[in-house]
Amino acid sequence: MSAAIDLITGELDTPFLAVDLDVMERNLASMAGAARARGFALRPHAKTHKCLEIARRQVEHGAAGLTVATVGEAEIFASGGFTDLFIAYPIWAAGGRGNRLRALAERASLRVGIDSEEGAQALAKAVAGADVEALVEIDSGHHRSGVRPGQAAEVATAAARAGLRVVGIFTFPGHGYGPGRRGQAAVDEAGALTEARASMRKAGLEVEVSSGGSTPTAALSDAGALTEIRPGVYVFNDSQQAELGSCDWADIALTAISTVVSSSGRRVVLDAGSKILGADQPAWATGGGRLPDHPDARVVALSEHHATVVLPEDGVSLRPGDVVRVAPNHVCAAVNLADELIVLANGAQQDRWQVAARGANA
Amino acid sequence: MSAAIDLITGELDTPFLAVDLDVMERNLASMAGAARARGFALRPHAKTHKCLEIARRQVEHGAAGLTVATVGEAEIFASGGFTDLFIAYPIWAAGGRGNRLRALAERASLRVGIDSEEGAQALAKAVAGADVEALVEIDSGHHRSGVRPGQAAEVATAAARAGLRVVGIFTFPGHGYGPGRRGQAAVDEAGALTEARASMRKAGLEVEVSSGGSTPTAALSDAGALTEIRPGVYVFNDSQQAELGSCDWADIALTAISTVVSSSGRRVVLDAGSKILGADQPAWATGGGRLPDHPDARVVALSEHHATVVLPEDGVSLRPGDVVRVAPNHVCAAVNLADELIVLANGAQQDRWQVAARGANA
Repeated sequence: MSAAIDLITGELDTPFLAVDLDVMERNLASMAGAARARGFALRPHAKTHKCLEIARRQVEHGAAGLTVATVGEAEIFASGGFTDLFIAYPIWAAGGRGNRLRALAERASLRVGIDSEEGAQALAKAVAGADVEALVEIDSGHHRSGVRPGQAAEVATAAARAGLRVVGIFTFPGHGYGPGRRGQAAVDEAGALTEARASMRKAGLEVEVSSGGSTPTAALSDAGALTEIRPGVYVFNDSQQAELGSCDWADIALTAISTVVSSSGRRVVLDAGSKILGADQPAWATGGGRLPDHPDARVVALSEHHATVVLPEDGVSLRPGDVVRVAPNHVCAAVNLADELIVLANGAQQDRWQVAARGANA
Repeated sequence: MSAAIDLITGELDTPFLAVDLDVMERNLASMAGAARARGFALRPHAKTHKCLEIARRQVEHGAAGLTVATVGEAEIFASGGFTDLFIAYPIWAAGGRGNRLRALAERASLRVGIDSEEGAQALAKAVAGADVEALVEIDSGHHRSGVRPGQAAEVATAAARAGLRVVGIFTFPGHGYGPGRRGQAAVDEAGALTEARASMRKAGLEVEVSSGGSTPTAALSDAGALTEIRPGVYVFNDSQQAELGSCDWADIALTAISTVVSSSGRRVVLDAGSKILGADQPAWATGGGRLPDHPDARVVALSEHHATVVLPEDGVSLRPGDVVRVAPNHVCAAVNLADELIVLANGAQQDRWQVAARGANA
């Protein structure tokens, strides 16, 4: 990488987000291969990259379709030619959003999440007549949105009564984002989806789609309980994934290229701050991000345009003007702060990809 | 506000950032009045709002000029007609950035921060011939960038030798961002600037500008030690400022207008997550933001498109479809995630302001 860095930082001022194309391609191939080998449909979550170019590569690698988080993201990927979209979120389909969903359903095969009777009724009213598939969100232990597994049939029945075509269930085992928690989260995911499926069948409702999976748990997902996985972060990986052990430092495909602007002994300040890396920092993280080329360095403080880095006593020294790579803690947050990603391959800039769905929160 | 919310959410899908114009105007007037009364030049930090319309109002209220954090922000405000700009950051002025600084100096009166001999030399080389004023950054206790007060003369002398016109010193008392810390931070700020000024004078260097101030410490800044204050957040305020006691909940001018999408008893999920609020959450914060209209509610978890809110047992209930206001913890981070701000006054939408400098990190 550093050769590439020297090449491009002559032309580009830091900080900026750079994608290592070879590493990204390896990540895409490896997740696609694992899903294929274990019989899962792979529906990558596009909220991580928000780029049409990357979504195309995911489909080339065999993705069954895309997952998105918002109607705005769905609109942008539909305009980019992606016609199989799952909005994995309990959308409140009132007002303008309802009309937008109806218009979307006319140009794409659309799946939408529901987790309440009111939500299902609002959705049914909004898309009446259009062919939209509904999936009931199940809480498998993350305790965010979603209903308890035993309530799946209740919501599904209300949705069917309101006129929706309910095709299955989905969950996000987000409680796997913690040291040593991936295994239990995958077990909880399988258990919750199995119980929800049983509750649906008891009510005479077929479950075609049982969707789960996150980057930390994807490799552990239960092929008996899931038909589909929806990992997002795997395309780039980040410091969180490396610190959780779900990837190696060499698997990190996106970094902020950054310059040392200030130094005092073993403490240096970089020009990459929370306005390019994002401020996500779980309690178990070692800091505000990591330097993949300096694994012993620690980002001890992060402000908007400053990363304060402490270097090990016996390690490399950095001086003002030196250029380094910083891996964000949570890559989805970093990408959503950038207008474009600089694509590097073979030690040189190959391309620039627009972050087409940046800021598409509604 | 809630009347305004009902009016506009017919037209706009949540989540979006809204500015209460009356509250913002009150905040602008009150900080400008306080600075005037205490003899400080007010140079507001535009990184908070990144909007030309708001910068114009700050100048109308008597601001001496603007503070920015990056060359990119300076370029955007210069293009917007603002010709007195201070980049309060130890800029590394090599390569393209050096040329951009030189071009900027030709269309604006430009001040730039320095905190090292190397940085000063790179800056002098980049802007050679152009009229740029340099200010030495002093570390007053935040321990980010900046030199120890006693080293001010050393860096200033090196800068002068390199050909820069050194006009003074600046500091950011960021360690005042903590409960009960504002008073001590203001004392540290005054002490550090006084010591730095003495070190400069001893070396025969005049100090025309002694610049400090942050929103939490502005009201406590020492008129004997400072000539100028640079608060930023005060224009909008945020949950951090209210929890620190540097503003009231009624002084918060920017909120994310958000919809309840999921509920289970006293726990509800809003569609405003970290991709619109930002993920900043200091250890002392009560959660991922606050609901100004429901002061007893707590944002117990924040993910990209979900805010999990726990409502008090004896308080109001919220149901899916209800619309609420969420004040971010750190408003600078939230604004930098939005393309535009919706401006509300007298219970209706008055305007939309473009976040012109969004993402201008370089």
